[in-house]
Amino acid sequence: MDSLKFSPELQENSPNTINPLNLEEFRRQGHIMIDFIADYYQDIEKYPVLSNVEPGYLRKCLPDSAPHCPEQIETILQDVQKHIIPGITHWQSPNHFAYLPAGISTAGFLGEMLISGFNIVGFSWVASPAATELESIVMDWLGQMLKLPSSFLFSGNGGGVIQATTCEAILCTIVAARDQMLSKIGREKIGKLVVYASDQTHSSLEKATKIAGIHPENFRSIKTTESTSFALSPEALKMAISKDIEDGLIPLFLCATIGTTGINAVDPLGPLCNIAKEHGIWVHVDAAQAGSACICPEFRHFLNGIECVDSFSLNAHKWLFTNLDCCCLWLINPSALTKSLTTSPEYLSNKASESKKVVDYKDWQISLSRRFRAIKLWLVLRSYGVANLRNFQRSHVTMAKSFEALVRGDKRFEVVVPRNFAMVCFRMVPSAFGAGVELDSANKLNQKLMELVNASGKVYMTHSMIGEIFVIRCAIGVTLTEEKHAIRAWKVVQETANTILQM
Amino acid sequence: MDSLKFSPELQENSPNTINPLNLEEFRRQGHIMIDFIADYYQDIEKYPVLSNVEPGYLRKCLPDSAPHCPEQIETILQDVQKHIIPGITHWQSPNHFAYLPAGISTAGFLGEMLISGFNIVGFSWVASPAATELESIVMDWLGQMLKLPSSFLFSGNGGGVIQATTCEAILCTIVAARDQMLSKIGREKIGKLVVYASDQTHSSLEKATKIAGIHPENFRSIKTTESTSFALSPEALKMAISKDIEDGLIPLFLCATIGTTGINAVDPLGPLCNIAKEHGIWVHVDAAQAGSACICPEFRHFLNGIECVDSFSLNAHKWLFTNLDCCCLWLINPSALTKSLTTSPEYLSNKASESKKVVDYKDWQISLSRRFRAIKLWLVLRSYGVANLRNFQRSHVTMAKSFEALVRGDKRFEVVVPRNFAMVCFRMVPSAFGAGVELDSANKLNQKLMELVNASGKVYMTHSMIGEIFVIRCAIGVTLTEEKHAIRAWKVVQETANTILQM
Repeated sequence: MDSLKFSPELQENSPNTINPLNLEEFRRQGHIMIDFIADYYQDIEKYPVLSNVEPGYLRKCLPDSAPHCPEQIETILQDVQKHIIPGITHWQSPNHFAYLPAGISTAGFLGEMLISGFNIVGFSWVASPAATELESIVMDWLGQMLKLPSSFLFSGNGGGVIQATTCEAILCTIVAARDQMLSKIGREKIGKLVVYASDQTHSSLEKATKIAGIHPENFRSIKTTESTSFALSPEALKMAISKDIEDGLIPLFLCATIGTTGINAVDPLGPLCNIAKEHGIWVHVDAAQAGSACICPEFRHFLNGIECVDSFSLNAHKWLFTNLDCCCLWLINPSALTKSLTTSPEYLSNKASESKKVVDYKDWQISLSRRFRAIKLWLVLRSYGVANLRNFQRSHVTMAKSFEALVRGDKRFEVVVPRNFAMVCFRMVPSAFGAGVELDSANKLNQKLMELVNASGKVYMTHSMIGEIFVIRCAIGVTLTEEKHAIRAWKVVQETANTILQM
Repeated sequence: MDSLKFSPELQENSPNTINPLNLEEFRRQGHIMIDFIADYYQDIEKYPVLSNVEPGYLRKCLPDSAPHCPEQIETILQDVQKHIIPGITHWQSPNHFAYLPAGISTAGFLGEMLISGFNIVGFSWVASPAATELESIVMDWLGQMLKLPSSFLFSGNGGGVIQATTCEAILCTIVAARDQMLSKIGREKIGKLVVYASDQTHSSLEKATKIAGIHPENFRSIKTTESTSFALSPEALKMAISKDIEDGLIPLFLCATIGTTGINAVDPLGPLCNIAKEHGIWVHVDAAQAGSACICPEFRHFLNGIECVDSFSLNAHKWLFTNLDCCCLWLINPSALTKSLTTSPEYLSNKASESKKVVDYKDWQISLSRRFRAIKLWLVLRSYGVANLRNFQRSHVTMAKSFEALVRGDKRFEVVVPRNFAMVCFRMVPSAFGAGVELDSANKLNQKLMELVNASGKVYMTHSMIGEIFVIRCAIGVTLTEEKHAIRAWKVVQETANTILQM
């Protein structure tokens, strides 16, 4: 076959031609990388949690174009150490209390290695039966751990799918709800459909609504108040729906949240569903962060009413020790989803799909290609077991309680909303800054306090607004965080407060 | 702080409590896993490429619920070997010629380890500056390697983003085009918008169109014929547009493809753009598989006309040795995208974003969360260098040429469409099955041939329809595939043909 080799003039000279999957090199480099990452975790507290680089720093460090010739992994890792790590915000630092913690584990990491090692593309059953079947099994397992009604499990004619993110999960369910409704009332009425949620709901809902082609003016962000601890009020929902119906609009979709991003508020599922179901509204529950904790019996009550909703999602990559990404979505009626999302191109046709005896997950998601995420979640559940997973979550809640008690013990501070899970929303009270300090100034000073805390590099926290009040959020849930880190975080806040008061 | 620990009655007994990120265990288990995966590659040819399990096989092997107590990694890996690997279709087998090859590399695998190890969530610049900046840099690097016009690079006021899949990339661009158009003509006209593509275009376009709320009847799948080698004909496009305008509809979006999934057809960008641009149509180019090969000067001509399009995407996880997932999307006018996809919740507000000096990639994609995919692509480009990457691709094309020559050398067979890259579409000619055999029977016999080839476990190929003709596709591009595998694949086809002819 030599004559068929590509013409020698095309073959480019390279000083050392490398087989991209040489197995000896794979082993050697793989072992180097394991140690590199373990060393990173070992040293992680040495780095400022929030990176302090300036915009554009990296272009100054790297060449303008890709190299023509191969470079050694040792050289590349030196660059990672020298140029990348200083520019990373260390989400796995035990002192990271910002946003929503992205808790990982050894098992989650090993699961990602298997995903990437097998590198299968399990869009349909036949493209890798084990990937599809393990996903169905593991979604049933997790559903049972959460004591979901059997109608959400494959065994009860519902079913679950692993997607990348809540945004994807919500978009898919909105599209399913939209098409189900439009098939009854006519496609031309798309401009009449209305989506409801509280003003604490994650921004991904509004984005998904827009992507799905629903009129942006028909997104109802219903105001919440302190009187309901910033949960969506069924009364307020009822009024919004009535007004829309009067105006000739068509209620479509409600997203309720268990543990909102800003302040961990919990919407009351049962009463909201009672109203929604009167109007044929699809109810989705977004429990991205807090949902995982509902595997603990003492938190399960937050899911009361779940038996009335259409779909439910949580991110195992937030508080179930699973490395990014792993969003678990369950539906009572998966066929509503697959009706909207099924494609059947000839090049994917196969007898297993035609037999209708198998699940083809491509029809449960936006994309065709999909990673074998189920094996990661399976490794996490097996490696730690339900009892341990609960205990890890409880330890985070305990740390949050510690932090909360410390805040309450300092009269200059207050806890602004009740703590439901492992996040504490606090601020310095206006009077601490001096007599007659108004809300606006207090907000600015609290922001200043947070910025100084973060600039120290010792701790990273982010903020939220509760009505007009600026609050600092201490969100606990990183795997490496221990009680001592939570306590030290509080000391950093206190010391920074002292500095501010002396300014 | 002892009094704040969670009540002892909540602490669940587990025989061996495990810290989910114990560093000694991380190292030990990580090294075990590297060897497990290397062993898998070493043994990969022992497994049937296409799994031969029956639907439902896995539920019979696994327990009904997650374990209460931890299990050892050694036990879990035994189960992977015993229960999962037999149910996997081996996409990394050198004998996998099905669908589109998902070529990986050691560097791609190491990149995934870093992504998962750092586990940062770089939705905005501040959430991890290095993740954002490396992505912009590496997208400029790859853009230069493809000789994209500078208008697609950040240096030329365009820019690139890494998404998970082509489906996501196309959905984002359709939404951007839709909102740009509707802002001019009014949102109520969403039902009038029309999307165009050839009938060879990937199914993800039709799906994205539906998800974006465009009327399903307004998706034009324009018939292709042999006369244009199944490329979209500019004449046919022109006619379709004219008819829609006459009918009061509004042309919105054209997706042209470089290397269609079914048969690797190439749409003529220049002539198509000439027509599309007359009507203000957004042109996207999907070069999912074949686009990567355009880093070779001898293939670059397939991108001629790219300077006239609005957006362009390819999957580095197909033919650029990057483990799943890594879809690269470039745009001339990223602000059209960010206008549609920007969200600004208070809990993400920060000074860097307000300064407008940074890219916040959350506004370039559907989801908020995102993995640090740029570091994977960076490792691939550096570890192999441009010269080697080209040579690897050329070696696949050479193997395809070998396979093609072998098909042409057997008079019972024909190559049905011209080969553009590394995929050969072939079939047994009807007369080989006997005098008077018609197309329908020939199709069924070719399907039978393919099924028997796949059932052998030695090779896995899939099919496509070219007009009314069933063709078998031999798609070359798996990293472990060598010339000998391509030749042996052909021998398996020939031997199976002999068997069929003797039946």
